[in-house]
Amino acid sequence: MDNKIRAGIVGSTGYTGGELIRLLLVHPQVDLVFMLSRSAAGNKVSSIHSDLLGETDMVFTSELKVVDVLFLCLPHTESKLWLERNYISAQTKIIDLGNDFRLDPEFYTRNFVYGLPELHREKIKTAQEVANPGCFASAIQYALLPLAKNKYLNGVFVTGITGSTGAGIQPQATTHFSWRNDNVSAYKVLEHQHTGEIKKNLEVLNHKEVKLYFVPWRGDWARGIFVSATLECCQSLNELYALFEYFYQDHPFIGVSRENISMKQVVNTNKCIIQLEKKEEVLVVHSAIDNLLKGASGQAVQNMNLMFGLPEDTALHLKPLAY
Amino acid sequence: MDNKIRAGIVGSTGYTGGELIRLLLVHPQVDLVFMLSRSAAGNKVSSIHSDLLGETDMVFTSELKVVDVLFLCLPHTESKLWLERNYISAQTKIIDLGNDFRLDPEFYTRNFVYGLPELHREKIKTAQEVANPGCFASAIQYALLPLAKNKYLNGVFVTGITGSTGAGIQPQATTHFSWRNDNVSAYKVLEHQHTGEIKKNLEVLNHKEVKLYFVPWRGDWARGIFVSATLECCQSLNELYALFEYFYQDHPFIGVSRENISMKQVVNTNKCIIQLEKKEEVLVVHSAIDNLLKGASGQAVQNMNLMFGLPEDTALHLKPLAY
Amino acid sequence: MDNKIRAGIVGSTGYTGGELIRLLLVHPQVDLVFMLSRSAAGNKVSSIHSDLLGETDMVFTSELKVVDVLFLCLPHTESKLWLERNYISAQTKIIDLGNDFRLDPEFYTRNFVYGLPELHREKIKTAQEVANPGCFASAIQYALLPLAKNKYLNGVFVTGITGSTGAGIQPQATTHFSWRNDNVSAYKVLEHQHTGEIKKNLEVLNHKEVKLYFVPWRGDWARGIFVSATLECCQSLNELYALFEYFYQDHPFIGVSRENISMKQVVNTNKCIIQLEKKEEVLVVHSAIDNLLKGASGQAVQNMNLMFGLPEDTALHLKPLAY
Amino acid sequence: MDNKIRAGIVGSTGYTGGELIRLLLVHPQVDLVFMLSRSAAGNKVSSIHSDLLGETDMVFTSELKVVDVLFLCLPHTESKLWLERNYISAQTKIIDLGNDFRLDPEFYTRNFVYGLPELHREKIKTAQEVANPGCFASAIQYALLPLAKNKYLNGVFVTGITGSTGAGIQPQATTHFSWRNDNVSAYKVLEHQHTGEIKKNLEVLNHKEVKLYFVPWRGDWARGIFVSATLECCQSLNELYALFEYFYQDHPFIGVSRENISMKQVVNTNKCIIQLEKKEEVLVVHSAIDNLLKGASGQAVQNMNLMFGLPEDTALHLKPLAY
Repeated sequence: MDNKIRAGIVGSTGYTGGELIRLLLVHPQVDLVFMLSRSAAGNKVSSIHSDLLGETDMVFTSELKVVDVLFLCLPHTESKLWLERNYISAQTKIIDLGNDFRLDPEFYTRNFVYGLPELHREKIKTAQEVANPGCFASAIQYALLPLAKNKYLNGVFVTGITGSTGAGIQPQATTHFSWRNDNVSAYKVLEHQHTGEIKKNLEVLNHKEVKLYFVPWRGDWARGIFVSATLECCQSLNELYALFEYFYQDHPFIGVSRENISMKQVVNTNKCIIQLEKKEEVLVVHSAIDNLLKGASGQAVQNMNLMFGLPEDTALHLKPLAY
Repeated sequence: MDNKIRAGIVGSTGYTGGELIRLLLVHPQVDLVFMLSRSAAGNKVSSIHSDLLGETDMVFTSELKVVDVLFLCLPHTESKLWLERNYISAQTKIIDLGNDFRLDPEFYTRNFVYGLPELHREKIKTAQEVANPGCFASAIQYALLPLAKNKYLNGVFVTGITGSTGAGIQPQATTHFSWRNDNVSAYKVLEHQHTGEIKKNLEVLNHKEVKLYFVPWRGDWARGIFVSATLECCQSLNELYALFEYFYQDHPFIGVSRENISMKQVVNTNKCIIQLEKKEEVLVVHSAIDNLLKGASGQAVQNMNLMFGLPEDTALHLKPLAY
Repeated sequence: MDNKIRAGIVGSTGYTGGELIRLLLVHPQVDLVFMLSRSAAGNKVSSIHSDLLGETDMVFTSELKVVDVLFLCLPHTESKLWLERNYISAQTKIIDLGNDFRLDPEFYTRNFVYGLPELHREKIKTAQEVANPGCFASAIQYALLPLAKNKYLNGVFVTGITGSTGAGIQPQATTHFSWRNDNVSAYKVLEHQHTGEIKKNLEVLNHKEVKLYFVPWRGDWARGIFVSATLECCQSLNELYALFEYFYQDHPFIGVSRENISMKQVVNTNKCIIQLEKKEEVLVVHSAIDNLLKGASGQAVQNMNLMFGLPEDTALHLKPLAY
Repeated sequence: MDNKIRAGIVGSTGYTGGELIRLLLVHPQVDLVFMLSRSAAGNKVSSIHSDLLGETDMVFTSELKVVDVLFLCLPHTESKLWLERNYISAQTKIIDLGNDFRLDPEFYTRNFVYGLPELHREKIKTAQEVANPGCFASAIQYALLPLAKNKYLNGVFVTGITGSTGAGIQPQATTHFSWRNDNVSAYKVLEHQHTGEIKKNLEVLNHKEVKLYFVPWRGDWARGIFVSATLECCQSLNELYALFEYFYQDHPFIGVSRENISMKQVVNTNKCIIQLEKKEEVLVVHSAIDNLLKGASGQAVQNMNLMFGLPEDTALHLKPLAY
């Protein structure tokens, strides 16, 4: 127990909080010290995350303790409010899973690094604060980063589809089983909140504007994002594959596939899988992630590993669902 | 329009109300006069039941009108309250889809007939008030009525599984897509609220007590109930099939199948399908219905047809979902 | 029975054949004379289409009879072969649900009209042969026809997703439940077989080339297609809605919605529903159909109604699944 | 690598073979030496188990090597044939995932122990051959073992439901997505092949006959079994819970829950979860497992751990799917 990383979670009854608990409870270098929840304080963690029955006797608390790393799993816009109202030691590293600091990294004496490890690995290693990317933002950036790096991006048409866990644990009309089952629908068309962070990062690499037209869809599963990005591109498929493979060669969680992919290959893992298809001058890039893992809590643990000098993949070799 | 049955619906924004609207809008002998809803009064019907876009321009109302038949689609226990607070002409026939009058048929000057058409067809024809049966109650009675008629019932072990529409339109934890998808669970084990009406009707026929052990499960689909009832029985499979076929010979919505059945055969129809299996002295009876149709609104229209002297199956030849 | 349309189906054990049987058995003006099937000849129709138990005692046959209208529900490329090998009277109207005649309308003395009723209603009324459109082709054309009519189309980026019935009844790896459930994947990217018929019809109206980039996805439901088409367009959203409403004003099965749509609004109906969204100069058009009905067999019956002078919607007011 | 257990898998392209590969590739004490497959020999493992892309470059082989432990993942009845045709050193331990040796443990010089670790842990530790239990057999025995131990069993009525992976990877009519989605059906009613092994083990403990009436259902998910067993029992719920908790106190994978359980709590884990409910003299026991893990490959690894003196739970702390 001595030298373990002491970790705490703020907002631990939702989906991303739950996934963090699952990952950190079995992380060999982490001592999960507290799970904060106003609504559930005093209740057993396994009473909310019932799959953890027998795995932990811990209870949710309303009391902060000093830790080495603090994960914020709060609804969007609430991280800033929470940090304003609670004193956190400057020694404590912070990983925020919301979108408050993705575009506005500076906050009092804090300075958040955008935590896409395959883009900012070195910066993350020395960061005290990390803004964990959005789920769609991760999937779309993985599909486009190598192209931006080579300044190939102009207009990109993206359709992405996500599972019901992307909509949060509070029941609502669009997550009612009777409505969502066997259904598909579009939402936030051309104005999804992740568009900003995607464009910002791509444009830095691309050295010019990236016109991004993003149509998000709701799918009828719980976990998983699948994205297809269509753009004009004159390089050959082989050149493009080589470029993607080179870009991701040192990144253990990104798989570039020359065979057809499907979303379920990555469900319940921290992996992203990418496939390219080309016809004449048109390129289509498919990518898939688990929105709660590579798109949220797995990414956060990967960032924590980097921030504490651990192997990037510690505790992230997860058994895929596969079927 | 002259001689049409004027119909009104009370509580018309939920699942059973919606199904009634769908059925009555295209019923050739019905003029759907109003759809009452406190919460949605003034809104277009198609704004709640969005599949009806283009089918009707009607709006929900909060105003009662005089009609020939009134359907009550209220939460359980609210039908009585509603009838106490609203004056309904004695000329108006009432079909209640709740469970208030299934066991307690008498109410002021009203006297409800239990509306299982295959059991009480003649009584329903002359009834002014009908208590529409519960969904599980329908499926289980169809599986057991011919046996009760022959006094074959002692102890019966029943497992039944239902879709998410059985839990109502208000979002809750157990209808959240993330929880319910790919999941199954038991609820109200040995104490489901339909047990009373099932036992009552079976025991009248059976001339002795029927011990009914009912384990209800939640399934991960929106529509459909499947039931397997296991009991000891010394008749041969052929005798039993003959008995079921005879019992249901005049009932157009009950299909007795000598081949394996599956639930989806009856989804989006007003049919019940039944199969028997036997090994040594043990009989298993499977039955399946659409919980919103033969288990609720389709049954209610069948009852209305009988009460108004129409052919029982008017407007109930529905296209099955099939796949 | 006297004056009814005598109809026959060739290839009647698959999904589109099954849907045709369901529709024609209850069509008031049709006498369904035979259902041809080599593999199932002699078997009861309800042994394959088990939801029809109790609805018909007909058996599949291998023998052709003279009919007024013949529906061909054969795998793609097999309609031509079949017509070459079988003599069909010139008096018999033919509706082909395959893609053999969509681009090549002339065949011996036959001359197929492309059967999109909202585009070619008058031609269909007098046609002896109709080539029924593809399912994706229908959904995409409904989304784009009013734009093509006004010559607004240049490049269009389309993502469409379809259910497992689109892949046919023969079990294969990509329709195995264990693989497809909770999964999504792309296929035939930029080279789907319906692209030809879509482009051909749009370009006739558009008076110039339409660049169509179509990414088809497989979804995890049985019925339903949802399509989002993205394109540059300088008209206002209100102008565009007016244009769509005008274009479809006489077409009972096309609903133009100013509220958010979802696919399940049209499942188990012959309807198409369309919604527009716009941001700056970018327009997104969503459309949804049931691939087996408006995308296949429902469309075929609508065409038959037109060809025989019946009201276009005869026997096509189907109860929506809704949930 | 020195002292690792050398393992081989026979029949490694199916679901249970795939799960074994996933588990053994990351098992710290195992060196997975070969994966045998006649049909796929020469192909990359990741070409069949596509989620393993990037995890292994191994290829399927048709060549046996000497190993410390051999897992047989063959269709039922084929294990015996395979062992007759292939020489396996007496030093090699064998774990058979089929049902050939569950009831017939003796085979030439081999003598299979029934591998239910919570029942036969000590025997398994010294066994050279283990017959891994069936999936339904595991779930049902976990629900009933403590009752049998106390001789409480007479007649037991069991309904169990399983996912599509239980039916194997070969596509068939009942695993076609279009048929299985939103569907439920019964199969092998009162004659499931696991009944024998369940009765045998229970009766040894129970010291008298156990009448077991088992109705298996097919559910519409890929992974997971849920079972409800109903029986007469005069002990109180508290006594029974105490009895179950005592029976399983040393068994890390069995969770006895006093709160409502649902199947997804254990999906993608090696756990079984059990809940009791009681009304008057009737007891209902629910249990749930992942059919491919605690019901097959996870159980097999647990057995291997025991046979080689490793902690029972090595490499079996799997991240639950949870949602």
